[in-house]
Amino acid sequence: MFFKVKTSEEVLSLVTRFSPVNEERVTLAKAFGRVLSKDVISPENLPGFPRATVDGYAVRARDSFGAGESVPAFLEIGGEVRMGEVPSITVGAGKAVRISTGGMLPQGADGVVMIEYCHLLDESTLEITRAVSPQENVIQPDDDFREGALVLGKGRRLRAQDVGVMAGLGVTELPVYRIPKVAIVSTGDEIVPIDEQPGPGQVRDINTYTLSAFCEHESVEPVFVGLCRDRFDDLLAMVKKGLEVADSVWVSGGSSVGMRDLTLKVLESMHDVELLVHGISISPGKPTIIARIGHRALFGLPGHVASAMVVAEIFLRPFLSSLSGEAEAGKERHNLVKARLGRNVESASGRDDFIRVRLTKEKGEWLAEPIFGKSGLISTLVEADGLLRVDRNTEGLYQGDMVDVMLLT
Amino acid sequence: MFFKVKTSEEVLSLVTRFSPVNEERVTLAKAFGRVLSKDVISPENLPGFPRATVDGYAVRARDSFGAGESVPAFLEIGGEVRMGEVPSITVGAGKAVRISTGGMLPQGADGVVMIEYCHLLDESTLEITRAVSPQENVIQPDDDFREGALVLGKGRRLRAQDVGVMAGLGVTELPVYRIPKVAIVSTGDEIVPIDEQPGPGQVRDINTYTLSAFCEHESVEPVFVGLCRDRFDDLLAMVKKGLEVADSVWVSGGSSVGMRDLTLKVLESMHDVELLVHGISISPGKPTIIARIGHRALFGLPGHVASAMVVAEIFLRPFLSSLSGEAEAGKERHNLVKARLGRNVESASGRDDFIRVRLTKEKGEWLAEPIFGKSGLISTLVEADGLLRVDRNTEGLYQGDMVDVMLLT
Repeated sequence: MFFKVKTSEEVLSLVTRFSPVNEERVTLAKAFGRVLSKDVISPENLPGFPRATVDGYAVRARDSFGAGESVPAFLEIGGEVRMGEVPSITVGAGKAVRISTGGMLPQGADGVVMIEYCHLLDESTLEITRAVSPQENVIQPDDDFREGALVLGKGRRLRAQDVGVMAGLGVTELPVYRIPKVAIVSTGDEIVPIDEQPGPGQVRDINTYTLSAFCEHESVEPVFVGLCRDRFDDLLAMVKKGLEVADSVWVSGGSSVGMRDLTLKVLESMHDVELLVHGISISPGKPTIIARIGHRALFGLPGHVASAMVVAEIFLRPFLSSLSGEAEAGKERHNLVKARLGRNVESASGRDDFIRVRLTKEKGEWLAEPIFGKSGLISTLVEADGLLRVDRNTEGLYQGDMVDVMLLT
Repeated sequence: MFFKVKTSEEVLSLVTRFSPVNEERVTLAKAFGRVLSKDVISPENLPGFPRATVDGYAVRARDSFGAGESVPAFLEIGGEVRMGEVPSITVGAGKAVRISTGGMLPQGADGVVMIEYCHLLDESTLEITRAVSPQENVIQPDDDFREGALVLGKGRRLRAQDVGVMAGLGVTELPVYRIPKVAIVSTGDEIVPIDEQPGPGQVRDINTYTLSAFCEHESVEPVFVGLCRDRFDDLLAMVKKGLEVADSVWVSGGSSVGMRDLTLKVLESMHDVELLVHGISISPGKPTIIARIGHRALFGLPGHVASAMVVAEIFLRPFLSSLSGEAEAGKERHNLVKARLGRNVESASGRDDFIRVRLTKEKGEWLAEPIFGKSGLISTLVEADGLLRVDRNTEGLYQGDMVDVMLLT
């Protein structure tokens, strides 16, 4: 089967086309980090009553007009607003009532003079040295949210302050996308479980652990299906099991020619399969396979953990974001750090190179030092802080260039 | 009690001085995001045997010397290395053995010719068009890690690839700091639980939810102690309960003068207390109280959620990092985004201002638009992407300046 290698952009557009998982409801205490599956509309006006935004005295603004350092105004103190209570006092002409931040503005008052500009002359006389305009230092009953207004849009991943705003509105339960599950199959005749001592020629199963941790970081649940030998029946069974228990199946280790062919054979033997990607013009990570099986995505990931991590950062992250229902899936992310490049980096034309870099702070800016080393080493991974993309349309990057570094998970 | 307002730097130095929580052991599957409490030393050589780093043919390098496009070398094919097995074949002079990436190098071979430079002439004859030097495309048994070498240092928060490297080394269990617990007490006579309909003058408990979500984001366990009325006995009881169940106590809502005084009175009534901070020269967030009670830290946080979140981002995050045992606690973090400022921002001298900004992408760079609005509003929080610090030693920032924006949790 002939298949043209695809560019990063083509692959990104394909992986973010899968539909999000379905919905569920969660209580607010469990909502942090979840993705809204419906818009949230304000159920009421907030704050619902006129509130002071400073500590001070509630007054009729016109009584303060003209007041200043040299020409203070004098008001009669008419009591105090207690927090959490409806004030029984009405502020008449020439009166001032003590109020704290968040207190309910008493009847008659339409402004609050900050405590800094108030001086008690005696128990009942207040001197103010600044005028307030009507509504100054006051919020109105619907200033924060008006009943029926859009508060948070569908597809938003809830941050701490979003959760706080939901609490403020009394939204105790929310419609969210459920947490996607990813089935992980680790393949290769040389792989042994991590609690076994590998013999010569064997290595422990690194990818299951790396990819599971990556899933956790992306708020997705990893499901380990098993270690798979290089046999058609075994791989077919594990892919089928993965499709039963999860929303996507990741076969890692399929980068050797044999395993790649096997993955393709398994896909060909299945129903309703479309091969979307067979090779990506990136390095490392080129021998990646992506297929649609029904409405699910199967990824055949490179066996080497460094390559698999590049594919994860560049393609699996936006894929998971899309699967999770995020509105911004596939769009530019925030976790880029501007850094100065520490040395020249060459690039092979025709492919995007992803170089592991170490970040250090120097004279107030980040310095990105490329990490070189034989491609098979995993030790370079613990030294790397981020990935630097060298675009296929450039000939390379120069020492001193300002570059965007993607922080590694 | 007279107490000088402290600068951000003084406060940061105080909050990162608390000792980390104690240790526990976790299995590798639970280790992602945890902080190492001891150095991890490599228990063995890795990979433990000589491995091919490419697909190709294992050869004696000297047999390839001089080979090139115009002067190919010809070798006799001597079989294949199977993945996960010790090759039974020895590579003698003039021989080549098929090998896949990760395969064990057979006896006699000291280099691997990449498959791209190999052409089968017939079943037993290989033409190679490139020379390899000794050890080319091969990693040695201890190239990745030598037995006894430091792999990951104490105080490191484990990333996905760190977990992968542990798997590769067969480290199935790790010593980590346990997850710190934070007791949250929400105070104020006007506060009602979020599932109750507030009467006029009352508001729902926003801070418990915002601070709990913030804790979750920082990988710390929040423990909700309760809503506290503005009474000495109640607050004392809740602070004591918090100290029993958690590693730090956060009293939120203590920013009104009454609650602040009450918090101070409660602290004064307790044993082994040191008031560390009573006011910080920042805005918002000035009325923050920090005390040491025994070996624990108590924070009295501003009642308004926007102010509490600024204190959380600037001081609680490094505090929690330090409590969690992170080696880099208090050091510069990565989550700063370089952005161009959309308009002038004034600053009051003598304090650091933290301005909420919205980030939008424009012509390949981030634009930071300050969000203005009455200080009591919580709706500005859902619009804000980050915080912009306007240093107390500047008179302000100008439209077009490149600034660092801290991303909000």
